[in-house]
Amino acid sequence: MITERFPRAARCDRIAPFHVMALVERAQALAAAGHDVIHLGVGEPDFATPPAIVEAGRAALSAGQTRYTPAIGIPALREAIAGFYQTRFGVTVSPERIVVTPGASGGLQLLMAAMVGPGDGVLLSDPGYPCNRHFVELVSATPQPLVLSAAAGWRIDPAAVAAAWQPHTRVAMFASPDNPTGNVLSREQIRGLAAVARERNGALIIDEIYQGLVYEQPAETALAVAPEALVLNSFSKYFGMTGWRLGWVVAPPALVPDLDRMAQNFFLSPSAPAQYAALAAFQPDTLAELERRRQVLAERRACLLEKLPAMGLKVVGNPAGAFYLYLDVSAVTDDSYAFSRALLEQAHVALTPGVDFGPGHQPSRYLRVAYTCDLPRLEEALARLSRFMETL
Amino acid sequence: MITERFPRAARCDRIAPFHVMALVERAQALAAAGHDVIHLGVGEPDFATPPAIVEAGRAALSAGQTRYTPAIGIPALREAIAGFYQTRFGVTVSPERIVVTPGASGGLQLLMAAMVGPGDGVLLSDPGYPCNRHFVELVSATPQPLVLSAAAGWRIDPAAVAAAWQPHTRVAMFASPDNPTGNVLSREQIRGLAAVARERNGALIIDEIYQGLVYEQPAETALAVAPEALVLNSFSKYFGMTGWRLGWVVAPPALVPDLDRMAQNFFLSPSAPAQYAALAAFQPDTLAELERRRQVLAERRACLLEKLPAMGLKVVGNPAGAFYLYLDVSAVTDDSYAFSRALLEQAHVALTPGVDFGPGHQPSRYLRVAYTCDLPRLEEALARLSRFMETL
Ligand SMILES: Cc1ncc(COP(=O)(O)O)c(C=O)c1O
Ligand SMILES: Cc1ncc(COP(=O)(O)O)c(C=O)c1O
Repeated sequence: MITERFPRAARCDRIAPFHVMALVERAQALAAAGHDVIHLGVGEPDFATPPAIVEAGRAALSAGQTRYTPAIGIPALREAIAGFYQTRFGVTVSPERIVVTPGASGGLQLLMAAMVGPGDGVLLSDPGYPCNRHFVELVSATPQPLVLSAAAGWRIDPAAVAAAWQPHTRVAMFASPDNPTGNVLSREQIRGLAAVARERNGALIIDEIYQGLVYEQPAETALAVAPEALVLNSFSKYFGMTGWRLGWVVAPPALVPDLDRMAQNFFLSPSAPAQYAALAAFQPDTLAELERRRQVLAERRACLLEKLPAMGLKVVGNPAGAFYLYLDVSAVTDDSYAFSRALLEQAHVALTPGVDFGPGHQPSRYLRVAYTCDLPRLEEALARLSRFMETL
Repeated sequence: MITERFPRAARCDRIAPFHVMALVERAQALAAAGHDVIHLGVGEPDFATPPAIVEAGRAALSAGQTRYTPAIGIPALREAIAGFYQTRFGVTVSPERIVVTPGASGGLQLLMAAMVGPGDGVLLSDPGYPCNRHFVELVSATPQPLVLSAAAGWRIDPAAVAAAWQPHTRVAMFASPDNPTGNVLSREQIRGLAAVARERNGALIIDEIYQGLVYEQPAETALAVAPEALVLNSFSKYFGMTGWRLGWVVAPPALVPDLDRMAQNFFLSPSAPAQYAALAAFQPDTLAELERRRQVLAERRACLLEKLPAMGLKVVGNPAGAFYLYLDVSAVTDDSYAFSRALLEQAHVALTPGVDFGPGHQPSRYLRVAYTCDLPRLEEALARLSRFMETL
């Protein structure tokens, strides 16, 4: 006899389900029933963790590196990450500013917990990463969606951010490269955004979790032009370590003690084996392997950018990074969610409906494609999509 | 040029530092300087992760089990945990009720996020696990300390909980076995607490992270007598997996969708390698090894319970579980924090000061001893403590 009455926080109703999860479940059921499903829905590259990292992880386990670590990470990893900013981006960051977290997810939580609370506002892009507004809800602050314009290619305009900034706004947070649009912020934009935040005594957070996954320019960090920005990053995407749960924050020195105290309380420590494994992430052979993977992603992207428009599906904006394209499917449907469900049922191709990325940007016009399968499969997916569209 | 102005949430000032952390740092510095420090401060057993679990983790890494998993855990692990309730405790729990989390820490966060928010109160024991009140602060709810009485052996009295329950109280949360007192709730107490929560339409959370580490009775679960209780647990302590970051919640079925949605947003997934490794935790040889470890802890406990009182140091209450004793040192000092610092400097023994466990219970009278080193070292620690006390 289990009673079903229990307290329920108001935030429960403000945390939307991921619609893609229902699709993922259905995709798995279809696959289990013997159908050949092509998965382009989930934000996870199809590459395995690089061998040197796996080997370092195995060695860490054998060596008993399985205990709590310092809450913001082992010193060797904080130093290795700081070193990476120097060698890869020419930016000097002291290891004391690196806070290692359980994924960028952990970093998002720490920053929200340390900076905002009830009554405070956080500016976020719509479309944008769905979890962001929910981290704001976690700490009982208020998400302030900044609805981007498709006509302007989802461009984030510092002037628009300045106009949207309210007296209660404390933080503006954007991703570059972005999920779902693939948008990459220019140096000029980052400078502009940092200036807006500075003038308002607020903070600018740049989520660089897709750093390194860029196809038209060298990889950059916002820290190069906005040293006071708070930067999020992760071993999940570029480094192929999603399931290990490891990320980091680059924070201003004065914020680190607060983040440390919160990490001690909320996480105790990031995964110990993951941290020791990640020490191998910056080895030259690992980085060379990651560059090869980037080339593979670049080929897939080029294929999609060539073929999708020819099929009448518009790629909005300039998806210069990440591994996503955000497609305007309004020429063929007025309900991208229904379209994605039918596409899955009839053609066994899984995409993510726009509705997951925010309510304000007319999400029923859009679908996200994650190019997370190899070229032949991608071409097969396009062929199925094309046949499916003929049946509409 | 990094500006040091940035928004700071009011909760930052309500999240106390762990005083033991300063001691841990000092202990490490002393050890680095060549001193032989005995560490009885941190809540982490000195045993390594059992070999079968380590091997399963290594195999998972080799097999590429390094991707995001379902947010509340892989089905096989949820089933294994449910099976453990059946075989070990004779309690039937459906796998659908098991929510796998990043440590019990992750479970504490999910439960607070799903059940309380601004204006809501959560009853917690003082002394108690320090992070609890900070999880309440994370979601902008109000911790309501229930100050326990040393004279009553830190007993948690359902009538006292009923008396402390306010109109805005939503949840009461207690650990059994408890940190720092080692206190174990009786079936009668749990029934009484559950009745109080039920009458007030509130929830009872029992943190069973030290389950299995009991020395005077068989291990139990609150679910045996209070099926509607929300139960927290972890692979950290009994299973020796602290640094892997893996725990679980047993929740009422109706709460699982909320917890799932929150886990999707806040964690994405628990560590994949840790989950596959933990599948080996319930193997008979692993469980036999864990029972041997429990015997070792029992011997250490017996040694301390015999010798400390003979030294004039009173163990308060009946520490029937966990691996802690909560010592009353008021006969020798009126400031347990200063005492612990001096003990570390002069005798190189690290204990945890009472101040970390709550402000209300006269913490300057108390010190926590974690019996996390072998018997000869423990006796050496006692000898040092005794010599140190002679110098006072
Ligand atoms: C923009 C963005 N930020 C943060 C995350 C969190 O990733 P993780 O916690 O695996 O680092 C994701 C994951 O998809 C993301 O797309
Ligand atoms: C009572 C109690 N609950 C929860 C935790 C959290 O542990 P973990 O997140 O490692 O499972 C601890 C850790 O010391 C504890 O003592």
